[in-house]
Order: sequence, then structure tokens, then C-alpha cells
Amino acid sequence: MLHVVGVGICEGHITERAAKIIGAAEIVFGSKKAIELASKYISGEVVEMKKFCGEVYREIEKISSKKNVVVLSTGDPMVAGLGSKIDGVVESGISSVQLALAKLREDLCNCVVVDAHSRDASGDFDLIEKRNLLILADRNFDPKVFGSRKVAIIENICGKERFKICLAEEAEVKSDYAIVYVWK
Amino acid sequence: MLHVVGVGICEGHITERAAKIIGAAEIVFGSKKAIELASKYISGEVVEMKKFCGEVYREIEKISSKKNVVVLSTGDPMVAGLGSKIDGVVESGISSVQLALAKLREDLCNCVVVDAHSRDASGDFDLIEKRNLLILADRNFDPKVFGSRKVAIIENICGKERFKICLAEEAEVKSDYAIVYVWK
Repeated sequence: MLHVVGVGICEGHITERAAKIIGAAEIVFGSKKAIELASKYISGEVVEMKKFCGEVYREIEKISSKKNVVVLSTGDPMVAGLGSKIDGVVESGISSVQLALAKLREDLCNCVVVDAHSRDASGDFDLIEKRNLLILADRNFDPKVFGSRKVAIIENICGKERFKICLAEEAEVKSDYAIVYVWK
Repeated sequence: MLHVVGVGICEGHITERAAKIIGAAEIVFGSKKAIELASKYISGEVVEMKKFCGEVYREIEKISSKKNVVVLSTGDPMVAGLGSKIDGVVESGISSVQLALAKLREDLCNCVVVDAHSRDASGDFDLIEKRNLLILADRNFDPKVFGSRKVAIIENICGKERFKICLAEEAEVKSDYAIVYVWK
């Protein structure tokens, strides 16, 4: 059995359902951060993942044919997460997208979520003509492309959070875990 | 103090953080379903909401100037929810959007979420040229507008769930709590 379980972003984000699934696992895989967030619910063996690639995922799937395995995913497994990459049953968690929308009090149905984390997402930028954009970004992302539009920059949610609203042409991303929200 | 707290869709979706906030409230407002989902965490007075309009929201805000108030929101308050309508601090919850994506193993960054629940959303349908659409729908919504595209219909998640993948021209929505996922 293989579950991919979202553990949220901050301490206390794990749901009751997720806690039960984690507690029942014989082996729990996850990044250092994901293991920290879930630690109090884990009773099985813990394996810290250091590589995130197809070879590792296939190996985990193989192990799950004999053992009850959980793969932890920070945030939600279906938001630029492991849910579409590993062949398991997905249990939802709270994502950084949700935390940003809660902070800004903006509804998901008014925006488009764009993954610009370690990838070129410029093909999606013209969606700004139709909707606000919520961009998952790292420090290589340059918000200035959106000119005089209003943006919010939210960095290191639940850590040393930085929050700023300004014009895109004045904005800068300083962290590798940033959300840039652009109003159309 | 006023918190708007997401309680998820199914039993067990409430996070540890949300449970604490609900437990500390002197008055808890919510729909019948939201109160049921949160009931084991509530220790204050419970008020079932039967009307969802500005007048009610302003009254709740007024009460919160004197009492510690929680308004429960099924799913996530920022997904076609109360978070943008009531002036409070939002605590995220698991939404039906996340459950649908988990079931389909589709990433949020590949789709656009459209609210067609009790409203005409046809202005958003041309986004199908750019991305898959995840449509929050009721029985008045007709998927046939998407012709020969592949769709998934998910109804009554965590209830008497109905799940079907077919062509849009053969699809039908039978419930008022449905998600229609359209592949571009």
C-alpha cells in the first residue's frame, strides 16, 4: 500500500485523516522538513529523501508492494507536488497557495496558479489578461515583467515571513520559497 | 476576535491548528454540515447559519468586537467560500478542489478553477484553450458545451460519491455539489 500524504506548511497543519495514515505506515519517506512536520505521528521506520527523481519514486513504489508505505509531501501533494509523480493514493494537505490566498483574502476562483519554481513559466504569463496570477517562485523569478501592475510578495510562510505589496516594477524575490500574487 | 475556519469536506479533515481555534471560540457560527464536521472540537455556543448574505456577515462582525467568534466554512474559506466575504483571520481547510485533484492525480498548476455554482461562468470557458478546467458546478450546469473533450464528473465527495470519465457531450450533472474536470 502506498499513500502520498500532504503535511501542510506550518506546524499543526496535518489533518486527523493524514495523522492516522502516517501513524499506520511501516515505512515513512519524506524530505527533512516534511519529516519534522509529521514526526509526532510517525511510528514506523523513517527514511529521509535527498533525491527527488523517477528512479527514487519507482524504488519506493516497489517497496510498497510488500510494505505499508507513506510518502510525505510538504503542502498539498497536488500543488507542484509528488502526487502526480508517485503512483499512490493521495491524502490532501494545506498548501502554500491556500496560505497566501488566506493572507490576501483572495479567492482561488479569481486567479490562476502558475508554477515558476525552477522552471520557465513565461508561457502562462498572458493569462494575466483574464485573471490574477498566483506564482510559485524562487529567487530567479523577476516580477518586473508585470510592469505597473500591483503585486504581493510573500516569502518564507511560517518561517521568517516577509510580506510586501508594491508595483511589479519595484518588486524583488529574495527567497527560494516565494509566492508572487499579481492583480490583473 | 473573528476567525473564518475551513473544516474540510469529509470527517477528519480538520487540522490541528483549526481544531485549537474552534475550541477557543465563545461563539461558533456555521452551516448544519460545517457544525457537524467540527462538533467534537466546539466548546462554546453554537449558532446555525441559515442565511448567507451581507446583513448576516455584518452582524457576526459586530458580535466579534466583544466576543471570540469563529465562523466555520466547509472546505477552504478561500475556494468560493466565506473568507473574502467576512472580515476575519482565515484558517485554511481542505477543499473539494483538492479532493478532486487527488482523485484524478492532476496538479493544480495545470488547471484553472472556475466557480459555476449558482452562477453563469461561461465568460471563463475560453480558458480551456490554455489549460484544463476544474469547474465547481450544480445540476444546472451543462458539460455538453465542451463537445468531444474528455471530462470527469465527481459528485457528492465523501457522501454517496458518483465518479465518471466520459466525453463532455455524453456527460450530465445530477447533483448540486459536483466537480466537472475538463481536459483541454
